[in-house]
Amino acid sequence: MEQKELMELLNKVSNGQIMPSEALLKLKEEPFQDLGFAKVDYHRALRQGTAEVIFGAGKTPEQIFKIAKAMQDKGQKLVLVTRLDQEAYEYIKQYLPLKYYQESKVGILGDMPEKDGDGEILIATGGTSDIPVAEEAALTAEAFGNEIVRLYDVGVAGIHRLFANLDNIMKARVIIAVAGMEGALASVIGGLADCPVIAVPTSIGYGASFGGLSALLSMLNSCASGVSVVNIDNGFGAGFLASRINHLEGK
Amino acid sequence: MEQKELMELLNKVSNGQIMPSEALLKLKEEPFQDLGFAKVDYHRALRQGTAEVIFGAGKTPEQIFKIAKAMQDKGQKLVLVTRLDQEAYEYIKQYLPLKYYQESKVGILGDMPEKDGDGEILIATGGTSDIPVAEEAALTAEAFGNEIVRLYDVGVAGIHRLFANLDNIMKARVIIAVAGMEGALASVIGGLADCPVIAVPTSIGYGASFGGLSALLSMLNSCASGVSVVNIDNGFGAGFLASRINHLEGK
Amino acid sequence: MEQKELMELLNKVSNGQIMPSEALLKLKEEPFQDLGFAKVDYHRALRQGTAEVIFGAGKTPEQIFKIAKAMQDKGQKLVLVTRLDQEAYEYIKQYLPLKYYQESKVGILGDMPEKDGDGEILIATGGTSDIPVAEEAALTAEAFGNEIVRLYDVGVAGIHRLFANLDNIMKARVIIAVAGMEGALASVIGGLADCPVIAVPTSIGYGASFGGLSALLSMLNSCASGVSVVNIDNGFGAGFLASRINHLEGK
Amino acid sequence: MEQKELMELLNKVSNGQIMPSEALLKLKEEPFQDLGFAKVDYHRALRQGTAEVIFGAGKTPEQIFKIAKAMQDKGQKLVLVTRLDQEAYEYIKQYLPLKYYQESKVGILGDMPEKDGDGEILIATGGTSDIPVAEEAALTAEAFGNEIVRLYDVGVAGIHRLFANLDNIMKARVIIAVAGMEGALASVIGGLADCPVIAVPTSIGYGASFGGLSALLSMLNSCASGVSVVNIDNGFGAGFLASRINHLEGK
Amino acid sequence: MEQKELMELLNKVSNGQIMPSEALLKLKEEPFQDLGFAKVDYHRALRQGTAEVIFGAGKTPEQIFKIAKAMQDKGQKLVLVTRLDQEAYEYIKQYLPLKYYQESKVGILGDMPEKDGDGEILIATGGTSDIPVAEEAALTAEAFGNEIVRLYDVGVAGIHRLFANLDNIMKARVIIAVAGMEGALASVIGGLADCPVIAVPTSIGYGASFGGLSALLSMLNSCASGVSVVNIDNGFGAGFLASRINHLEGK
Amino acid sequence: MEQKELMELLNKVSNGQIMPSEALLKLKEEPFQDLGFAKVDYHRALRQGTAEVIFGAGKTPEQIFKIAKAMQDKGQKLVLVTRLDQEAYEYIKQYLPLKYYQESKVGILGDMPEKDGDGEILIATGGTSDIPVAEEAALTAEAFGNEIVRLYDVGVAGIHRLFANLDNIMKARVIIAVAGMEGALASVIGGLADCPVIAVPTSIGYGASFGGLSALLSMLNSCASGVSVVNIDNGFGAGFLASRINHLEGK
Amino acid sequence: MEQKELMELLNKVSNGQIMPSEALLKLKEEPFQDLGFAKVDYHRALRQGTAEVIFGAGKTPEQIFKIAKAMQDKGQKLVLVTRLDQEAYEYIKQYLPLKYYQESKVGILGDMPEKDGDGEILIATGGTSDIPVAEEAALTAEAFGNEIVRLYDVGVAGIHRLFANLDNIMKARVIIAVAGMEGALASVIGGLADCPVIAVPTSIGYGASFGGLSALLSMLNSCASGVSVVNIDNGFGAGFLASRINHLEGK
Amino acid sequence: MEQKELMELLNKVSNGQIMPSEALLKLKEEPFQDLGFAKVDYHRALRQGTAEVIFGAGKTPEQIFKIAKAMQDKGQKLVLVTRLDQEAYEYIKQYLPLKYYQESKVGILGDMPEKDGDGEILIATGGTSDIPVAEEAALTAEAFGNEIVRLYDVGVAGIHRLFANLDNIMKARVIIAVAGMEGALASVIGGLADCPVIAVPTSIGYGASFGGLSALLSMLNSCASGVSVVNIDNGFGAGFLASRINHLEGK
Repeated sequence: MEQKELMELLNKVSNGQIMPSEALLKLKEEPFQDLGFAKVDYHRALRQGTAEVIFGAGKTPEQIFKIAKAMQDKGQKLVLVTRLDQEAYEYIKQYLPLKYYQESKVGILGDMPEKDGDGEILIATGGTSDIPVAEEAALTAEAFGNEIVRLYDVGVAGIHRLFANLDNIMKARVIIAVAGMEGALASVIGGLADCPVIAVPTSIGYGASFGGLSALLSMLNSCASGVSVVNIDNGFGAGFLASRINHLEGK
Repeated sequence: MEQKELMELLNKVSNGQIMPSEALLKLKEEPFQDLGFAKVDYHRALRQGTAEVIFGAGKTPEQIFKIAKAMQDKGQKLVLVTRLDQEAYEYIKQYLPLKYYQESKVGILGDMPEKDGDGEILIATGGTSDIPVAEEAALTAEAFGNEIVRLYDVGVAGIHRLFANLDNIMKARVIIAVAGMEGALASVIGGLADCPVIAVPTSIGYGASFGGLSALLSMLNSCASGVSVVNIDNGFGAGFLASRINHLEGK
Repeated sequence: MEQKELMELLNKVSNGQIMPSEALLKLKEEPFQDLGFAKVDYHRALRQGTAEVIFGAGKTPEQIFKIAKAMQDKGQKLVLVTRLDQEAYEYIKQYLPLKYYQESKVGILGDMPEKDGDGEILIATGGTSDIPVAEEAALTAEAFGNEIVRLYDVGVAGIHRLFANLDNIMKARVIIAVAGMEGALASVIGGLADCPVIAVPTSIGYGASFGGLSALLSMLNSCASGVSVVNIDNGFGAGFLASRINHLEGK
Repeated sequence: MEQKELMELLNKVSNGQIMPSEALLKLKEEPFQDLGFAKVDYHRALRQGTAEVIFGAGKTPEQIFKIAKAMQDKGQKLVLVTRLDQEAYEYIKQYLPLKYYQESKVGILGDMPEKDGDGEILIATGGTSDIPVAEEAALTAEAFGNEIVRLYDVGVAGIHRLFANLDNIMKARVIIAVAGMEGALASVIGGLADCPVIAVPTSIGYGASFGGLSALLSMLNSCASGVSVVNIDNGFGAGFLASRINHLEGK
Repeated sequence: MEQKELMELLNKVSNGQIMPSEALLKLKEEPFQDLGFAKVDYHRALRQGTAEVIFGAGKTPEQIFKIAKAMQDKGQKLVLVTRLDQEAYEYIKQYLPLKYYQESKVGILGDMPEKDGDGEILIATGGTSDIPVAEEAALTAEAFGNEIVRLYDVGVAGIHRLFANLDNIMKARVIIAVAGMEGALASVIGGLADCPVIAVPTSIGYGASFGGLSALLSMLNSCASGVSVVNIDNGFGAGFLASRINHLEGK
Repeated sequence: MEQKELMELLNKVSNGQIMPSEALLKLKEEPFQDLGFAKVDYHRALRQGTAEVIFGAGKTPEQIFKIAKAMQDKGQKLVLVTRLDQEAYEYIKQYLPLKYYQESKVGILGDMPEKDGDGEILIATGGTSDIPVAEEAALTAEAFGNEIVRLYDVGVAGIHRLFANLDNIMKARVIIAVAGMEGALASVIGGLADCPVIAVPTSIGYGASFGGLSALLSMLNSCASGVSVVNIDNGFGAGFLASRINHLEGK
Repeated sequence: MEQKELMELLNKVSNGQIMPSEALLKLKEEPFQDLGFAKVDYHRALRQGTAEVIFGAGKTPEQIFKIAKAMQDKGQKLVLVTRLDQEAYEYIKQYLPLKYYQESKVGILGDMPEKDGDGEILIATGGTSDIPVAEEAALTAEAFGNEIVRLYDVGVAGIHRLFANLDNIMKARVIIAVAGMEGALASVIGGLADCPVIAVPTSIGYGASFGGLSALLSMLNSCASGVSVVNIDNGFGAGFLASRINHLEGK
Repeated sequence: MEQKELMELLNKVSNGQIMPSEALLKLKEEPFQDLGFAKVDYHRALRQGTAEVIFGAGKTPEQIFKIAKAMQDKGQKLVLVTRLDQEAYEYIKQYLPLKYYQESKVGILGDMPEKDGDGEILIATGGTSDIPVAEEAALTAEAFGNEIVRLYDVGVAGIHRLFANLDNIMKARVIIAVAGMEGALASVIGGLADCPVIAVPTSIGYGASFGGLSALLSMLNSCASGVSVVNIDNGFGAGFLASRINHLEGK
């Protein structure tokens, strides 16, 4: 409950429009719905506008379905499900017209909104194997109304592939740099770009990459300024944050 | 063997009621039963009263069955089996009327005891995915005679869901805070509550959560006072300790 | 702000006793004092009664002094300062009658309160070197009105030293087990006691003790039930939690 | 060298205005100055406008002085030196009118620019000990022309201190959340704010905080969306990135 | 694009042979082919001569096939595929005459080139279990035209097996030492050889070998000079580097 | 080749009994047999007497069979295969009368030798789940002619189970303490025994036991003297070393 | 209290020689002396014979002095103090004729006992820098009556230095291998020797040696059998254990 | 002792030129000198030619002096001392004309040899702070007769500084890439160069750089081929290996 609403509530109490005891109830009547196993947060939905998100990992197909259904019933236009495995998708599609992106394990209920961001979001990957994480970021950002430019397999081992696309880097409003192994892509892009760069380490690699730790540390220690990092393989987090930055104008 | 018993034994030796050599035997005749692969500890059962516990992981179905059987034969009213996988359950239920809670992998032999705790134990989780660990804690505490209040999916990302239940937090005798990812729930509850808070990090999360390490470190470093931590996913340990704290009165 | 106060405030608004705009102000007028570099939290003090605590590490002598002074001015009877180094103590004692415990780096302003706990708190250490951490716990618990029994240097390498004190273990309401190196003390006490055991790993040791990590992991993995863990060297946290558990009766 | 300049250069070669061999030279004549031990990068300065930065750690006082001097000679209006220790400051101030902020180890040569950002940057800390890192962020952002709101010591252990400042959180364009120990502040703010949140873990804490690792992991695993992370104690990085986000409008 | 080519291009612009705008296009027309999911780098192929490499892990069978096909179509004589699993091989062999080495998961398209290296490359393993990694190195080096001497199962537990082959060690131009567990083989060979030694830690071992970390750290800390290390299980990297060193003459 | 043999060889050269070139060959003709993928070390067999060992992990069934066969052909009385999985056993038993111990994954070819050790080896485990590792140690030691006393499930959570067997501890020549979780068993036994104690950490546990790391660190940091440690789950190593210690007399 | 003594005590109670209450007291009258900060364990002294040990680290000079004094007063012939820093030594030597070995930080009170071990203990180091740890082991073993052979700076980088001393290796009853960096010495010696090898990792090295972790892991993963490991830099532990093994005969 | 010498020795025994017992002695008379605390290895010196190296860390000034003196007396032309601190230098220069390079802590006794390498060694650093490690590499390589090209402060944050020196990269025979923080320099150079690249991670950085671990992992996981890694800050190792590679021709 935000300040403005609180003021209104207090005004009504003062005017005798509602009883103090009712007001107390109101204050406790929080903007979420309790499904028992989950407390669906409509408060967040209100603030964020178009899309609402379900993190699918660790939830049963039934739980995902019920949350998605509850959201849709509440009038939500687009529901985004991340980390949705094939099995859960098979279950849900029986009841809901869910669109499934297998590579990135993303499910989308409803139509993609119009692009209303301030500029373009560039998503670059070091290699082919980083694409699933990049696509999670891309679909997330699209679900929140952003224009995406994809630039895949431009890792520093063949740096001319990156330089051939310098204009895209220069023109982007936000850049998401997705890379595993040594994650140097984030530093190199960070040194070239003049917009915020969100680095996403991926668990791609082997041996001493330790499930993405190498790329994570590399990105945290980037010598380039203007780079920040999200969790390993967290395409959603990067896409969401990029959208936020890309919708600041007029805030 | 506790002091009082030792005194009695020595008195009997002094009175000639028993021979020294017999006494030596007695001293070695420890209150446990040797099944070869396991030494079932009835001593602990005596102290703890109602329930006796078998940690199922790493034991064969046969071993679990034999230990449970031996306990029941000894007159144990309730036998709690934790980390019991489906396969072991299928085996045991052929011979014993075991009740199985699939989500939390808990098996219970016998009826739940009466609630005789000093107050209520509140169990809160950060998300839906933490529920299995929370339920292990809840069932454990119930098996030891405690009243449980469940408060699931109240993580700090939508903190109003937690605040809508402040009265439950205020009224609890002990709180178990179960959370994965960054485990901030324990700190926030620790800052609000005035009773002991037992934090249970879960292995829920991905990437740099490193199987619960992130939540574990977070909880150990809690800036809130009155918080202590048990092992990752150790719902049983939290439930057991909570029960102990909730049965101190009149000790 | 708790529920009861909120109800009263709303009643006053309803009765016209105060204006809605004033009420809003009131709601924002939180029970803490802003010193610029610190927001002293009197809310917590109210709940906890006798003592208020300052964590000295990372604060300048001036900052510690100002916070302590503000607390005393507000009527606080006892101010406990932990992690207070010699230099800061020298500075503060010029202005305030601070009592300093060098070994445990604890400073105390005001007189120790009466013992009003439900039972005794036993504090055991594995070795002589763990005493500073144990004393931080002991002084903290004393500052909150607890009776302490000290049992130092009873590590498992000479386990008969521990067994010679079994009666103390049996009679305690709460036990704090302080140990470095392999931290086995917590498990052994946990296996003997029937009250809550708070384990405090210490950074005592060398080589693969990795600054207390070995003892920490050991204690988290304790095979004994009823044991929970606080941060490495966190004597204060253990003493505070022990006091909470020792004051539950009549709550 | 960017695309536009390359086009112009090629045009000149085509027109015979410059020789191919000269063009090659030009292409190699990069916009940096070689001081032997350092290659001062004026290219970056051009892009970033007002301020230029020297990372002081690991450089000798002489090296810092020479780089700062070279920048000033080149016409740089404001030179920011981070991680500047007292000794290096003493050396440099003999030759240059450097202003020194001891707490945050920041040195500034020249006058702070006008505030030309899109909105306000809010900088919050969990405790008093996190202030040095927060101030590094604040001074950096000010050096790049941003309006800063400071909100210090609002950690989650006394969460009402944070809620008393909800309006600041709601109104900020970017938030920098600085916290050590368990770093829960970032998640709680992330759950409340609707602007980008930059989390800065600090090395404040002890024991299992492992020099900031606990806070770092916690922040990376934040369950709140819209949060990204910079390196431990990297106040500069956070301030720089916040400024970039706060200057996107009209880009 | 290398310097010589750039000079020629500029000359042509100067002579009016090509338009500036065409030159710009040329400069952007990079020597790689964009397959959408991958940007195949022919530039590297040009420099390296005979073989071109595809890292199979994390790519779908279709992707590997398409990249291999594109390379072959471009006239590549030998295509090496590493980390190629059985399933991908089964798919590709339907369309291309790929030779598969199951033990080392290497696939080769085309005929092995002539041996044109400066000397012999010796590949030694600590045990039988290290052979798959060693074979990846061996096949890689053979694909780049090197003569290989294999010396398998000569670990330090029976050091006479190594000493019986001292002449091979003495005569080698480069040595690849492949070992898991404690990785001591690299140090012992490093102490005996007078040529560059490339150490490859393998993930062979159990318990505290932590997936090759033990061998990796051991090799990095080798007390013998002339030893450098590649990633855990990175047979390809070692074979490639060995080939480079073995082809320096006449460079 | 040991000193005595070298002397003899040189004498023969001196006497003209063999040619220098032959001697060189002899010096290179090492006491191992080269199977290509393995160099079977008969030298070690000579020294150790009765048993010869094959580490099964990472070897194919065929390789294990061939090595075992070669050993048997060479006259080896007992061949011990550790880490032998079911599948490899099924393959080998077609050709060789291998006895298989499923729990400990040990295979034995030939009859157990007579007990010729200096005393008894006591093998204790903390829990039931540690038995497979303990049995690997027990079978290994038996294969080298040792008398074993098994003392399973005597962990410190119920320490009276251990004390009921104090006489076994007192009488042992060597003790192997096998434990997972917090591994405190090694310290407690180390504090009671006056013979060498070999600690074997096991990967039994969950959460922060990190695959045996907790027990490993605990045992390395044992405050009891006379304790040394082998790798996690390394029952073979412990059994082998115990046998060595138990056969020192008359050496 | 061992079994025999318990039997005698019970006999006396039975005979009426002592009262049950006295017996209880006796049972509690443990063989240690309580100095408040330390419980000096004479029980251990009885078992171990000649020497008694004080671990100096983390104790104040006064504490060390008092414990040493109490031991001497009790009739202890030799008191060994390990990890004794210069300052503590200066303090103690005022009151007691302590002999100080600066390099290894060992202090000895009383005369070295006669050599009564079963054979020789060989102590080898990888480098010159490992000597302090080796000397702690050597002095410890000498204090318990062992003959020591020192073989320093025989690391595997120049393995002929080790082989020139093969006869010492062959003849030893126990070997202590002390090495930092990659710790390969233990494996190489383990592959050559036929007696128990105690490996001591040292914190010598830099970079990725991580304070001895590299050597520790290396030694734990030794491919040679018969090797066990003590804590990093734990010369005392190795010397003590070696002495135990070297005094087994006639046990 | 190498094969050729052994053959000669055996010939002499055969010819009766020397006695078998003398031969045995000869075989044991290894080419090193025993100074007690060190066994100076002249064998290595013979092979490597001009320079001999002393690793100064962990040795006392006296020890370093004695080893250097012994080498010089044996006729060694150049003695290189690495990790030589100021204090040790001050001691040694009293007796020997040692030249000291303070920044890189290198001491050199004797004159630099002629450049006789096959080509040039390029040494690049990411920043100014990496120069000390780079200089250790440079001086080492110079001491072994190599031509060095220094390219300092060319990190990827301003990648045009690196590209302005592409010709140096193209022309080098071996490249040493020295970088801390995220260590991306090695990957970028590895992607551009066609000669062996030796990556040296440095401990430069802060926070999550963890003393060079970040750069180390980054370099090990380099996506560029032809890159191998030495220990953190191991400038010597890189310089030595580079020299070996640069002296292969004519081997």
